[in-house]
Amino acid sequence: MSEVNFQAWTKARLGQVERALDACLPKAESLAADLPAAMRYSVLGGGKRVRPLLVYAAGEVFNADDEALDAAACAVELIHAYSLVHDDMPCMDNDVLRRGQPTAHVKFGEATALLAGDALQALAFQVLCLGAHTAPVSHGLRAYKADLCAILAVASGGSGMAGGQAIDLANIGKPMTEHQLRDMHARKTGALLEASVMMGATCGEASENAKTLLRDYAKAVGIAFQVVDDILDCTADSATLGKTAGKDAANNKPTYVSLLGMARSQAYAQELRTQAHLALDKLLKIEGLSPPHNLRQLADMIVLRHH
Amino acid sequence: MSEVNFQAWTKARLGQVERALDACLPKAESLAADLPAAMRYSVLGGGKRVRPLLVYAAGEVFNADDEALDAAACAVELIHAYSLVHDDMPCMDNDVLRRGQPTAHVKFGEATALLAGDALQALAFQVLCLGAHTAPVSHGLRAYKADLCAILAVASGGSGMAGGQAIDLANIGKPMTEHQLRDMHARKTGALLEASVMMGATCGEASENAKTLLRDYAKAVGIAFQVVDDILDCTADSATLGKTAGKDAANNKPTYVSLLGMARSQAYAQELRTQAHLALDKLLKIEGLSPPHNLRQLADMIVLRHH
Repeated sequence: MSEVNFQAWTKARLGQVERALDACLPKAESLAADLPAAMRYSVLGGGKRVRPLLVYAAGEVFNADDEALDAAACAVELIHAYSLVHDDMPCMDNDVLRRGQPTAHVKFGEATALLAGDALQALAFQVLCLGAHTAPVSHGLRAYKADLCAILAVASGGSGMAGGQAIDLANIGKPMTEHQLRDMHARKTGALLEASVMMGATCGEASENAKTLLRDYAKAVGIAFQVVDDILDCTADSATLGKTAGKDAANNKPTYVSLLGMARSQAYAQELRTQAHLALDKLLKIEGLSPPHNLRQLADMIVLRHH
Repeated sequence: MSEVNFQAWTKARLGQVERALDACLPKAESLAADLPAAMRYSVLGGGKRVRPLLVYAAGEVFNADDEALDAAACAVELIHAYSLVHDDMPCMDNDVLRRGQPTAHVKFGEATALLAGDALQALAFQVLCLGAHTAPVSHGLRAYKADLCAILAVASGGSGMAGGQAIDLANIGKPMTEHQLRDMHARKTGALLEASVMMGATCGEASENAKTLLRDYAKAVGIAFQVVDDILDCTADSATLGKTAGKDAANNKPTYVSLLGMARSQAYAQELRTQAHLALDKLLKIEGLSPPHNLRQLADMIVLRHH
């Protein structure tokens, strides 16, 4: 598949997830409080939507249906959005700028931001069970819905994303080994990226064999994502990133760059990209699947991105 | 069923949910951070466990199996516990005392308390899908697991508990009509109490007819719970409540007592108790169900409690 086709695919899928997110979020006037507005602001204010794209690209390999993929794509992005809202709060990273805009607590106050994050997490599980496009009443069950909830809950919870964030906070200003740094990032960002891929595969009722290969792909992409994040925090400016650059160094946070150096970090990102490609090459040999073109392009996009 | 039998039942079920909560929470040493300890502290530090008791009592009417009820009982209590952790934080109610102990952010710091609440919410959905007693790997699916997740997500989210909390915050110091107050509490506390009953019924695969009656019961109990809370905030002392008494009046928060007066609030609580009993009387007429003795006693306990 050409780069041009991937761009067209990305544009189409980004439009699709944006419409699904808009549909599943509560209308601003649905409550006598600014909570729905804060939820919408925190989700619809842009973002690369990497996780939804991974859901769609993985699901397509198994010809999963779009309604299921929309729900999974929204759910994982809602979790990502809630984590950003809470991470930005004064008691955490105390960030005032996100995607070039005031963070949720700056715009709506801390209490509403806290509640918006909480409500976005609940909405993620609601959408997985009731769909992104329907009113919140129970409709026909698919057997894998509870599997999707389990994958997302484990990935975002105390041994996943929230756990990684806690390890991060506990280690600011402390030396970390590469093993510790890798464990932290596997939880903090890797778990949700991996969950995105696995949820897409689950929507397509992928075989265990295929899931194992996709997990290899996702683990490589997950680490690569963080390595490149660390590189960009050193090399890009705040305007390009849409958030405050150089914060890790300023906060004396251990990163791949501080641990491995810039050259080795860049080489490592390339090596992970190759690992991801290799897992997809093996996936190609399983009969009856669609070629994972977009997963391959997404791995490239994640490693080669500039923001 | 006698009061003595109810006390024995309560003791047995409280022991059961305590063991299930202990089993589903991560071990304190499972992460290189104090997040698991903060999660355990926030859940295992006591509490009346009203919501788990409602789950068990409702499930028993339909002979639901204990493993499913344990998962539902844990899940709803984990959601309740996370909401208390976040509500107590400085940007919300700024409470330092909960169940006679320092609140989570006082004990562990705000960042860890925030993450502990987030992780407890995720754990609730994990437990619903994977069970309270098993390691987090997928086991056999029951068709209603996604229904349980949907009920809990809707009840705790932006149009439920979190929404009620947002309305509460938006109205501190403002006059509220009875309609507004009722709507706020229906979301803030009623939704999760109702979800407890409905999740128990769902574990027992209750008929729609039975669910309708249980919803009537749960709505009455949910309002009664809040009316009694408001009464106790005026009449009990902090030591009895295990939290700061008189806070609502001090914060100029609208309550049933400030709106209806003490005498009418007390009469209203009794009226709601009667409504709950009536719904159960109708339930008794459906064939093949076990008598809802414990639901009746729980309604009495909620109205007649002193803390």
